[in-house]
Amino acid sequence: MTRIERAGQGETVEEFVQLAQSEHTSAETIRGGIASGIITSCTSAVRKLKPLAIGNGLRIKVNANIGTSSDASSIDEEVEKALCAIEYGADTIMDLSTGGDIPKTRSKILDAVKVPVGTVPIYEAGVWAARNRKGMVHMTADDLFRIIEDHLVAGVDFITVHCGVTRSVVERIREQGRLTDVVSRGGAFMVEWMLYNEEENPLYAQYDRLLEITKRYDAVLSLGDGLRPGCLADATDRSQISELIVLGELVDRARRAGVFSMVEGPGHVPLNQVETNIKIMKHLCGNAPFYVLGPLVTDVAPGYDHITAAIGGALAGMSGADFLCYVTPTEHLCLPEKEDVKQGVIASRIAAHAADIARGYPGARDWDDRMSEARKHLDWESMYKLSIDPVHARSVRSKHPPQDEKLCTMCGDFCAMRKIGDVLGVTRKS
Amino acid sequence: MTRIERAGQGETVEEFVQLAQSEHTSAETIRGGIASGIITSCTSAVRKLKPLAIGNGLRIKVNANIGTSSDASSIDEEVEKALCAIEYGADTIMDLSTGGDIPKTRSKILDAVKVPVGTVPIYEAGVWAARNRKGMVHMTADDLFRIIEDHLVAGVDFITVHCGVTRSVVERIREQGRLTDVVSRGGAFMVEWMLYNEEENPLYAQYDRLLEITKRYDAVLSLGDGLRPGCLADATDRSQISELIVLGELVDRARRAGVFSMVEGPGHVPLNQVETNIKIMKHLCGNAPFYVLGPLVTDVAPGYDHITAAIGGALAGMSGADFLCYVTPTEHLCLPEKEDVKQGVIASRIAAHAADIARGYPGARDWDDRMSEARKHLDWESMYKLSIDPVHARSVRSKHPPQDEKLCTMCGDFCAMRKIGDVLGVTRKS
Repeated sequence: MTRIERAGQGETVEEFVQLAQSEHTSAETIRGGIASGIITSCTSAVRKLKPLAIGNGLRIKVNANIGTSSDASSIDEEVEKALCAIEYGADTIMDLSTGGDIPKTRSKILDAVKVPVGTVPIYEAGVWAARNRKGMVHMTADDLFRIIEDHLVAGVDFITVHCGVTRSVVERIREQGRLTDVVSRGGAFMVEWMLYNEEENPLYAQYDRLLEITKRYDAVLSLGDGLRPGCLADATDRSQISELIVLGELVDRARRAGVFSMVEGPGHVPLNQVETNIKIMKHLCGNAPFYVLGPLVTDVAPGYDHITAAIGGALAGMSGADFLCYVTPTEHLCLPEKEDVKQGVIASRIAAHAADIARGYPGARDWDDRMSEARKHLDWESMYKLSIDPVHARSVRSKHPPQDEKLCTMCGDFCAMRKIGDVLGVTRKS
Repeated sequence: MTRIERAGQGETVEEFVQLAQSEHTSAETIRGGIASGIITSCTSAVRKLKPLAIGNGLRIKVNANIGTSSDASSIDEEVEKALCAIEYGADTIMDLSTGGDIPKTRSKILDAVKVPVGTVPIYEAGVWAARNRKGMVHMTADDLFRIIEDHLVAGVDFITVHCGVTRSVVERIREQGRLTDVVSRGGAFMVEWMLYNEEENPLYAQYDRLLEITKRYDAVLSLGDGLRPGCLADATDRSQISELIVLGELVDRARRAGVFSMVEGPGHVPLNQVETNIKIMKHLCGNAPFYVLGPLVTDVAPGYDHITAAIGGALAGMSGADFLCYVTPTEHLCLPEKEDVKQGVIASRIAAHAADIARGYPGARDWDDRMSEARKHLDWESMYKLSIDPVHARSVRSKHPPQDEKLCTMCGDFCAMRKIGDVLGVTRKS
């Protein structure tokens, strides 16, 4: 029996108790959420990791994507990036490798990291077909399902599967037209495959087979948004929502089969459409956990897309998104370096934390209040310790040592904290 | 007659026509907005600058703060920072100097920059009193008003004046208690001065005198929020809103006197209170233009506060804020370097632009659509040109040259844009 099935029968397994502790809630809340599908465990049965869950009422989690491409395929560098992401607070890692020895890269990453790992098996399946069947479009459904099972047996916790890119949904793009068509790699490949083979998407046509394999490992289906908008102009369009409707149906089928699922979301979305996107997704998909990439609230900031994504991610989180996929500064330009991974994780964590506070996640604001208390007392050591990046905070201030070590060079003698402390401090109500 | 008075009499001065052109609106809209006080010109009559206005229906503007402190007082460096901020798109500069030769710094900045410049005269008045009257608290009202006029006659376009920090408002802080009391430098000094002298704030007690001086130069009063919350815990509290009520009254008096005004706002505000803050301000202050610092949506990210401010600024802008004051990465740690100024301006511009799109500012999204069109065609030269920071975008990609110059190292051969272009491109509806 899977954990969903156990939860559905009223059983509180040990994992739910542990999750309840780390999430400041009750084991019964976790059990109920898992039974109804609004909470998803993020760990498969294979690697026996520390439990991590995503969904309604829980802390918003942050994912960092790493992985090779045909242009840059050093396994060691990608493992280093994964470890760096975890060091700076990523909750999960996705290995999106499409270059070099993909199975070996995945295996090294699974060995190196002790957090949930996600993958997109169709990347490997496409690359495998390109190398072994004279073209990606010659991939067979059996190739794809074999590779999916390879991933799960190796201990991958969640897999992105673009099941919602059906022939009918592709018709919606053709009918409508789009500025940037399909920007999801898995989605674009699926469309290419379907049009070439004149067949339905095997992940949809054989969804029961997918559920069966996934269930064997009690892993998670992350229902990919192959038609996510790749620019503001395409956001919230009929193509995107058509796919979302299919994903909603597939969430239901996963729940009935006792398989964990979550739903992936956009993408590029104007700020005024972010809340709508989250609300319609939650409504169409039975409040399934929602995993968003960004959203990026403008298209014009390559080199700074960790910031455009942090803006969208914070608002998405406040509106109900449960899981933020980071975006690095180099998105739209090149594969990130380790420093870019760090910057992406921190920006995404800021967004997630701001949203946790906004959602009233229990205890989220305590961290801020402790920082503010330290500021009030000009207690720099505590400020550093409480910073999201203590080493960086210390190094910035240390480069500009103030004359009075209690102050900083921003205001110098004109420090409001000290001034007001001298004047009002004694009268302040406790 | 001031421009407000002329607008009120139905006169469309040449400046309104120019503003209408740059803001994609009609001169009559500008005239009406200025007459009613929901639009404020940002240039005084002294320096004859290119017109710039702030307020309802206009593009959201970005301000960059520069200026010396007692710990760091190089005039040349501050001028360089101001020029750097303008190069990266700041619409206005505020000189917040509190160290070294303050009048000379201001003069050099006014000479160097051709955009509106704001100052906070009370800083200079306090420092002057500390040097000439044996203590800041010994500043007299005449000292303060003399220095205010010095600023305006020199060509400062807008001045921040903490008129709302009244004795009654200070009582509200005492009654309530706060985690970080008063974090505004001007506000803290005003409180100190009032408590020491047992007198009312001269900027409030002699507000008519302030209006009269400001009117002489047709300059702008930026009504400072001396009690802005300095941490999430203090946001939207009774102290803050008490001051805002006073500022609303002072906006009315400025309008009646024919003097431009705008209102400054927080500060540190949880994401879920940002919209409320903007709405209550607009309501209490007769829809006056709203100038926000941040808001910062978490207290825990020193070193990354340009990002926490971009999140808050974007949501504030979407909710109706008209003018964003940048925050640099070094806020809460030290005076920014030139590179920090650049990072702050760009983050703030991203927030402003995302909000312009969300508000439906005419033509705002065209920029994004052109970028997306360039992406669709893998036209890298156009992508660079359209980037918010073209030099940076080019340099990031150039560090990692792809094998195929049409692609990038992120996806390499697995490029969705190319794949889908090959497949769907020919069928796409025009």
